[in-house]
Amino acid sequence: MIIILKPGCSSAEEQEIINEVETLGYKPHIVRGVEHVVIGAVGDERSHHTLETLNNFPQVQEVMRVQKRHKLVNRQCHPEGTLVQVGEHRIGSAPIHVMAGPCSVEGEKQLMETAIAVKEAGATILRGGAFKPRTSPYEFQGLGEDGLKLLARAREETGMPVITELLSENHASMVAEYADILQIGTRNAQNFQLLIAAAKTGRPVLLKRGLSMKFEEWLLAGEYVLANGNANLMFCERGIRTFETYTRNTLDLAAIPVMKSETHLPVVIDPSQGCGRAQLVKSACRGSIAMGADALLIEVHPNPAEAWSDGAQQLSIADFRELMQELKPIAAAVGRSIATL
Amino acid sequence: MIIILKPGCSSAEEQEIINEVETLGYKPHIVRGVEHVVIGAVGDERSHHTLETLNNFPQVQEVMRVQKRHKLVNRQCHPEGTLVQVGEHRIGSAPIHVMAGPCSVEGEKQLMETAIAVKEAGATILRGGAFKPRTSPYEFQGLGEDGLKLLARAREETGMPVITELLSENHASMVAEYADILQIGTRNAQNFQLLIAAAKTGRPVLLKRGLSMKFEEWLLAGEYVLANGNANLMFCERGIRTFETYTRNTLDLAAIPVMKSETHLPVVIDPSQGCGRAQLVKSACRGSIAMGADALLIEVHPNPAEAWSDGAQQLSIADFRELMQELKPIAAAVGRSIATL
Amino acid sequence: MIIILKPGCSSAEEQEIINEVETLGYKPHIVRGVEHVVIGAVGDERSHHTLETLNNFPQVQEVMRVQKRHKLVNRQCHPEGTLVQVGEHRIGSAPIHVMAGPCSVEGEKQLMETAIAVKEAGATILRGGAFKPRTSPYEFQGLGEDGLKLLARAREETGMPVITELLSENHASMVAEYADILQIGTRNAQNFQLLIAAAKTGRPVLLKRGLSMKFEEWLLAGEYVLANGNANLMFCERGIRTFETYTRNTLDLAAIPVMKSETHLPVVIDPSQGCGRAQLVKSACRGSIAMGADALLIEVHPNPAEAWSDGAQQLSIADFRELMQELKPIAAAVGRSIATL
Amino acid sequence: MIIILKPGCSSAEEQEIINEVETLGYKPHIVRGVEHVVIGAVGDERSHHTLETLNNFPQVQEVMRVQKRHKLVNRQCHPEGTLVQVGEHRIGSAPIHVMAGPCSVEGEKQLMETAIAVKEAGATILRGGAFKPRTSPYEFQGLGEDGLKLLARAREETGMPVITELLSENHASMVAEYADILQIGTRNAQNFQLLIAAAKTGRPVLLKRGLSMKFEEWLLAGEYVLANGNANLMFCERGIRTFETYTRNTLDLAAIPVMKSETHLPVVIDPSQGCGRAQLVKSACRGSIAMGADALLIEVHPNPAEAWSDGAQQLSIADFRELMQELKPIAAAVGRSIATL
Repeated sequence: MIIILKPGCSSAEEQEIINEVETLGYKPHIVRGVEHVVIGAVGDERSHHTLETLNNFPQVQEVMRVQKRHKLVNRQCHPEGTLVQVGEHRIGSAPIHVMAGPCSVEGEKQLMETAIAVKEAGATILRGGAFKPRTSPYEFQGLGEDGLKLLARAREETGMPVITELLSENHASMVAEYADILQIGTRNAQNFQLLIAAAKTGRPVLLKRGLSMKFEEWLLAGEYVLANGNANLMFCERGIRTFETYTRNTLDLAAIPVMKSETHLPVVIDPSQGCGRAQLVKSACRGSIAMGADALLIEVHPNPAEAWSDGAQQLSIADFRELMQELKPIAAAVGRSIATL
Repeated sequence: MIIILKPGCSSAEEQEIINEVETLGYKPHIVRGVEHVVIGAVGDERSHHTLETLNNFPQVQEVMRVQKRHKLVNRQCHPEGTLVQVGEHRIGSAPIHVMAGPCSVEGEKQLMETAIAVKEAGATILRGGAFKPRTSPYEFQGLGEDGLKLLARAREETGMPVITELLSENHASMVAEYADILQIGTRNAQNFQLLIAAAKTGRPVLLKRGLSMKFEEWLLAGEYVLANGNANLMFCERGIRTFETYTRNTLDLAAIPVMKSETHLPVVIDPSQGCGRAQLVKSACRGSIAMGADALLIEVHPNPAEAWSDGAQQLSIADFRELMQELKPIAAAVGRSIATL
Repeated sequence: MIIILKPGCSSAEEQEIINEVETLGYKPHIVRGVEHVVIGAVGDERSHHTLETLNNFPQVQEVMRVQKRHKLVNRQCHPEGTLVQVGEHRIGSAPIHVMAGPCSVEGEKQLMETAIAVKEAGATILRGGAFKPRTSPYEFQGLGEDGLKLLARAREETGMPVITELLSENHASMVAEYADILQIGTRNAQNFQLLIAAAKTGRPVLLKRGLSMKFEEWLLAGEYVLANGNANLMFCERGIRTFETYTRNTLDLAAIPVMKSETHLPVVIDPSQGCGRAQLVKSACRGSIAMGADALLIEVHPNPAEAWSDGAQQLSIADFRELMQELKPIAAAVGRSIATL
Repeated sequence: MIIILKPGCSSAEEQEIINEVETLGYKPHIVRGVEHVVIGAVGDERSHHTLETLNNFPQVQEVMRVQKRHKLVNRQCHPEGTLVQVGEHRIGSAPIHVMAGPCSVEGEKQLMETAIAVKEAGATILRGGAFKPRTSPYEFQGLGEDGLKLLARAREETGMPVITELLSENHASMVAEYADILQIGTRNAQNFQLLIAAAKTGRPVLLKRGLSMKFEEWLLAGEYVLANGNANLMFCERGIRTFETYTRNTLDLAAIPVMKSETHLPVVIDPSQGCGRAQLVKSACRGSIAMGADALLIEVHPNPAEAWSDGAQQLSIADFRELMQELKPIAAAVGRSIATL
């Protein structure tokens, strides 16, 4: 760590910090600048006590970390990209996977109709929510295990692996029994107990970015999954919260090159949550492919206006079909392809 | 709900929306403006299907909710303020309670020393973390049940009720056995399963505001607690995430008058998390009291520079003592007092 | 406008608002809902007094605008897109223009070298700052009129029209004499006096989005330009300020489809400011093209590490050349092309 | 400055950075950590070329500044607080000044009535807008010089000095002729040309915080005023833009202790803009006083519901009178007083 002292410290004040650095197990190294004394504290920041507490001393201007805090997700420890195996698909390889389906599973007819349609249009993985985290306790909370059963049935019918959200530690083994990928939603992105429970199922995990999560925090949340023995992790950008209200969230597409450089794990984009308006979703999908996304997660509904949740952002089947056609030449233009079943 | 159509809609387009409004169970009421047709959809928005899905129709400019979504926490359903009973204290009444103690319980000596000191200085409730949600899996995660036992012992010793964080649904009954108030942290503010589990213990719940939670979302998260049979809820502002990095978070003190007008439940301020720097905590406490906070939640440590977590924001015992003296005349100036044991 | 009254208003309270609506020149139209009375105030919101002041009455829950406030920039008043003529280029047509050059004009050699190189690589417009708005008064503020003269010379040499920033009302005619496009920077995006001065020169104006400007505010800032007689306006997204600090700003690429739907004017992306890191700029350019940008504004420097300003985000000439090759197939994939001189 | 190299740099890569540091005029000082090499670049960062451009080298992980960039506004160069003289008032001393008056000057009757009333209630400085920056070009833009004349007349009548906004470099001398304090608004907080023009009039300047301005940027904007020969500067917090929409802005009251510790200049709070709702303004004023504000800037209107601008946030005269009574005991509780004429 690096400790910057305020200008004009006395040598006693300087010595006080040096002693504290040593007490906490680091070797101090002094750099005398034009105005400031800077102390480099040499030692492993991941095994030692953090020095951020030194901010408490009035003579300290700032304490800065040198080491990145994430290890297992860090690309430095795994320079080539990791492929996450889902059924026969390998996410992170050149073919780009499209995961599509309804926001919520509403019933057999709605799910089957959607599943068959998105498969025909070119999706390779089926999405659908069985447990829904809703801002209000009075909104539809999902069909629960019945929804999971319908998803499993749709998988049988179509051959598409299934992704669905895990909301509760207590559901982890049940959801893992039915689903091929466990999704951790934005509201639970720092629910570490849930991350650990998901990791322990052994299923691939898709970790959405929290509403106001910095990249480093997201990487560290992912670190909880790998540190608990599960290396099949995907990061999914779904928009962050900003002052702009026209779009539901601000889809931060820079997440693609940033995360691809920081971590070896695949990066997925969810433009439906990211934009919150069906008219914007197509454009965001095109951009995501051009910028290097490994997969897309798209909400599709046979009749968005009557959807039980988030209708405003679900694509109709016709729109989805059109979109899939548009994506192919863009994928080719960046040296990739759209995956097929 | 109110639906605003785009200028220049044909009467067929208008009729299509009117039909849809009726299909979804509302009675349409048309207002013809200078440029826009506005449709008032009369019906109870809390029991009917939401009309936000109408955003999907190209002729719709905007759909707006009329009713507030929260009910049980709403001051309209309980105009006088609710007092939350904690041991012999009644939070929400004129005396303002100060909850103080270390960020984390680190051991018996540290906890007892702090507990006795904060009691002497005037705190009425002891805080301390036994389960700690940490951004990195490699940071100290708390002493767990051993920490809870130490808290219970400190309560015996000092007579102060105890508040501590609940992190996992699976710990709810265990934590409730030892603690007098269950704290739900900012990262779990929309972990609805945890809120339900906390509610069901019957213990008073202190719900921190999420890092980027709007007031309405916070009220609705609180609604999960009341809707699950527990009316002993307090809302705790602890700073929101903004672009400013000088302070750890941006403490939104307007939360006090806003929440006091929207809900009948007590409002608590956590200036330690809110500011992230001990030097700012005192000032924030003074402002909180002047603006009408019902309680404060303050981190105090016998030796902040060697704290195992969040040392930069913990007050020393001497500073805390001084602060408590400063708060008394401010409380008096706004017609309240600082509570005593 | 729409006024929502709080539940449980007395009829006297309701009448008070109805009277006020009439006093302010609107015709009230009452909708009685399940819980709320809603008053539609019919009248032209752009010529009448705003009713937002009604928020002052305690019985009012909310006042909502119906009409959009922008007119001349609105796509409704000009359904097909506007082409902005710059020299022989028509920005907004199928060929996508790339404006490239150094952040600051540092001297003749640096500018000429860059201008010739970016032209060879395929840029059609030369960018370069002569007046630089700098966060600190002690940083390099640009070469001023000398810089403008160098830009004019580079135009002569290369045939590329020139874009440069206008910082002061008092410089408007001087800058307009040398430049082909006047750029209004993010810090001045709501400096309305500057917008008016720029408009009045008659030169095409490129208006960057303010650091924390909502789309509607940006459109209204643009409205100042058109309302002052200048229809040659381009909107340029350059990243907004959020909590994320890894990137200098958060490039909001949804601005492309949003602004293309709201306004008939061209949309430009500045990925250099948007990302703040040269390594991310290429990816952002690819995404911008795929999402429908009409032009890009890219910082290029012969030796970024020794640039006098913003070196971290400037591309080297080699990188820029490579980028231009990558963009062509993406433009083709979305039915467009990269413009040529 | 401090340069952190990525783990695993070769010695050639390390040497390349060392050479560049020397080329740019700094003396390199190497600290070898457990994983990283850190280079302390010793030299005055305010007179040398910035090293942030080194971010361009792929082997560099991060470049960090050591010195603060502001000098003249820095409390280190003027440890006791500066008092700003306005007429006979000295802002920054123990008595807290209340500047009050209408958002916009609408006419003689409205202004005089308000001026007399706020004076009677205890205000010591009169505020009122003559040039108004409005988001839309179609909104009321102020009475201009006629408004200034009315303000000057109100000063004669009441003896209160006058504060009003300066919008254009070209108005600086005209506004300075009539006003006692020049206000720079939030939209122009980084309009450096305007700051310089204001500074040069010699009048005291009140600089509002930009909508998304970090403290350091605000201090540097203030530095433009002092560096242009005018030491009579006040900083005014007026709320920042965040995701919360219930309040118009998020009033960041931590600005008071932060700015009081960073700079020697007075800190003023504008709760009217900060909250945007009259009901919240009183509470925010109470908090501001308790936290150490040197002055308040409050919008008051004889009939807020019919105000020509920002009616929702203006206090009625009766409310203002009540507020002034409430503030006295709070000021006393923190060892200060409310200033009187």
